[in-house]
Amino acid sequence: MTASIKNSVKTIGILGGGQLGRMLAQAALPLDIRCVFLEDAPDCPAAALGPVYKSSEFAAFAAAADVFTFEFENTPVETASQLESKGLSPNAKVLHVAQDRLNEKNTFLELGIDTVPFTAVETKDDLLSAAERLGLPLVLKTTRGGYDGKGQYVIKTEDDITLAWQALGEAAPLIAEGFIHFSREVSIIAVRSQSGDIATYPLVENLHHEGILAKSTSPAQATESIDAAARQAITQLLEYFDYVGVLTLELFVTDKGILANEIAPRVHNSGHWSIEGAVCSQFENHIRAVSGLPLGSTEVVLPSVMLNIIGEHPRLADLLSIDGAHLHDYAKSARPDRKLGHVTVMCPDAASLDVACNQVVKVLPNQMGLAKQSS
Amino acid sequence: MTASIKNSVKTIGILGGGQLGRMLAQAALPLDIRCVFLEDAPDCPAAALGPVYKSSEFAAFAAAADVFTFEFENTPVETASQLESKGLSPNAKVLHVAQDRLNEKNTFLELGIDTVPFTAVETKDDLLSAAERLGLPLVLKTTRGGYDGKGQYVIKTEDDITLAWQALGEAAPLIAEGFIHFSREVSIIAVRSQSGDIATYPLVENLHHEGILAKSTSPAQATESIDAAARQAITQLLEYFDYVGVLTLELFVTDKGILANEIAPRVHNSGHWSIEGAVCSQFENHIRAVSGLPLGSTEVVLPSVMLNIIGEHPRLADLLSIDGAHLHDYAKSARPDRKLGHVTVMCPDAASLDVACNQVVKVLPNQMGLAKQSS
Repeated sequence: MTASIKNSVKTIGILGGGQLGRMLAQAALPLDIRCVFLEDAPDCPAAALGPVYKSSEFAAFAAAADVFTFEFENTPVETASQLESKGLSPNAKVLHVAQDRLNEKNTFLELGIDTVPFTAVETKDDLLSAAERLGLPLVLKTTRGGYDGKGQYVIKTEDDITLAWQALGEAAPLIAEGFIHFSREVSIIAVRSQSGDIATYPLVENLHHEGILAKSTSPAQATESIDAAARQAITQLLEYFDYVGVLTLELFVTDKGILANEIAPRVHNSGHWSIEGAVCSQFENHIRAVSGLPLGSTEVVLPSVMLNIIGEHPRLADLLSIDGAHLHDYAKSARPDRKLGHVTVMCPDAASLDVACNQVVKVLPNQMGLAKQSS
Repeated sequence: MTASIKNSVKTIGILGGGQLGRMLAQAALPLDIRCVFLEDAPDCPAAALGPVYKSSEFAAFAAAADVFTFEFENTPVETASQLESKGLSPNAKVLHVAQDRLNEKNTFLELGIDTVPFTAVETKDDLLSAAERLGLPLVLKTTRGGYDGKGQYVIKTEDDITLAWQALGEAAPLIAEGFIHFSREVSIIAVRSQSGDIATYPLVENLHHEGILAKSTSPAQATESIDAAARQAITQLLEYFDYVGVLTLELFVTDKGILANEIAPRVHNSGHWSIEGAVCSQFENHIRAVSGLPLGSTEVVLPSVMLNIIGEHPRLADLLSIDGAHLHDYAKSARPDRKLGHVTVMCPDAASLDVACNQVVKVLPNQMGLAKQSS
């Protein structure tokens, strides 16, 4: 069944033309699969790898590819739905859930996946009851939109409630999430093929700085029970959505085990290490899945650390003089808080990985709070 | 000095747009370095990665890039020389040598690098004396042109001499090479930076089938003395040519040590394993060198085998269902004896590498004589 599809996919249409689209297309090239993109931003990172269509050229985009996927979850459901009959992976159902934090959390509950305590907030009164029920501090978030810490308000005191409502009330419906004590943030990435095969990458530990991912370490140090719980949760999600492609699940590790935070129905920043660090990268596996091809091995080649380049470019020669530093520059102009690229280093043991990682941090203009961790 | 150059190279002009150009450009992309190509063949493999200029558009090509390199050694010296003032790496001097087997062998002699016994042949009488001096069998080759076994005639008996002269005499000057008894064919690839740093990949063992590379194994099983001799020879060559970029040296292993066969002043088929199997691939290192950037590590990640896809494509799904098989399809149409792509597999030990390799051979329509070697 998979085999019969294989020759028909020569071109994949990707909704979005950012760095994820760029890296998907880079992974598709050696399989002789070309990508085309739907993106309004000029000079987008994916433009180096294939034709870019504007929203106004949607019909031409839809005619230019054999199958379709997306590189960001805020793709309008209507746009995605228009492509479903032509073959869209993953399907629009997951977008509907991933675009709405309330839907997302309710889906976790429905599947019996532990998540953070939460409550829907439509009015200021709702927010007051939420504060009572969940206690303070709590995080008020828009249900839709927002990423990298945007569209969020941390309510620490009763006075903050009014301020938070002033800041976000207009964007209601909102979701209030109880503050939880977690020791670490981790994520798990898995891929499901058209024939239902599932392959799971190892759990990865993530460090954020001011709401933006700074560092991912693969594999995360984790107990077998945490690892098994994460694998089970993502497997349930993949099957629930009849999902095809790469799915990411972000989790908190607490004393009592893992709590699901959110899903990203796409390749994910915390999986960029897999380009060098896994036998088959998240990008190639997504391409394989949406093209109806067999999945590649998600096994780790060597332990690795991925560091994001945020806001300002390092000097190229400085970075490349670090032994084993793999640069991925997204061809974007510098702007504060912007993801401009990432660097992956691999080492067989934790100690040398730490040394290599510190070398990279030293040449980054924005050290994302990691310099203090240097030992 | 290296540092001052780094920001100026945004675009590399590559003479040639075949699979080597394609893979060079793929390696350049993550460094945010773009490539443009000079190539007359329509739909060339590199076209997916950048603009392709025809010979008739040479001036536009020359204006489109900051520095220049080539992907095949038969680039006309005049064309290359025109680009030298703009920055051509490696320089035209090496082309002059690499394009002429007689120059090449004489250069080996000059540097004290052992090579096969040879003699220049301009007339049939020269050929008769060569046969006397070198003995039979011998190989008669054109001094210029020819690759993958073309432009060669193996003279086994005295009767063959006339036939060989009939076949190749018109293409004189020729070179006659004594037949040597070698146990294995190996190659060594090294890279030299603008500041004179040299990094050497491990010796690789190559298996040819009907004159075309079928399989490369990295690293080759070799004694320390063979390894050291090969490294010394390529280092001498790099320094002799004041070379910048990747250089390949093909060698025979005999009872008495190594004999230099030929050089390729470019990335080479026997180095394709390095995309996955080395920390920094031959392609990225060539890009780094010609851009004035520091070299990357040439260390092996895991032992690997590279198998060429010749003449006919395998079924994509068959190939990708092999655990750990890395496909590189060059986007070329099928034609007998044509290099259409390659597959790399990596394994920590020789036994599992052999198993993986045999799995790949089984799905290749053209098994290049390797099926019999399956155990």
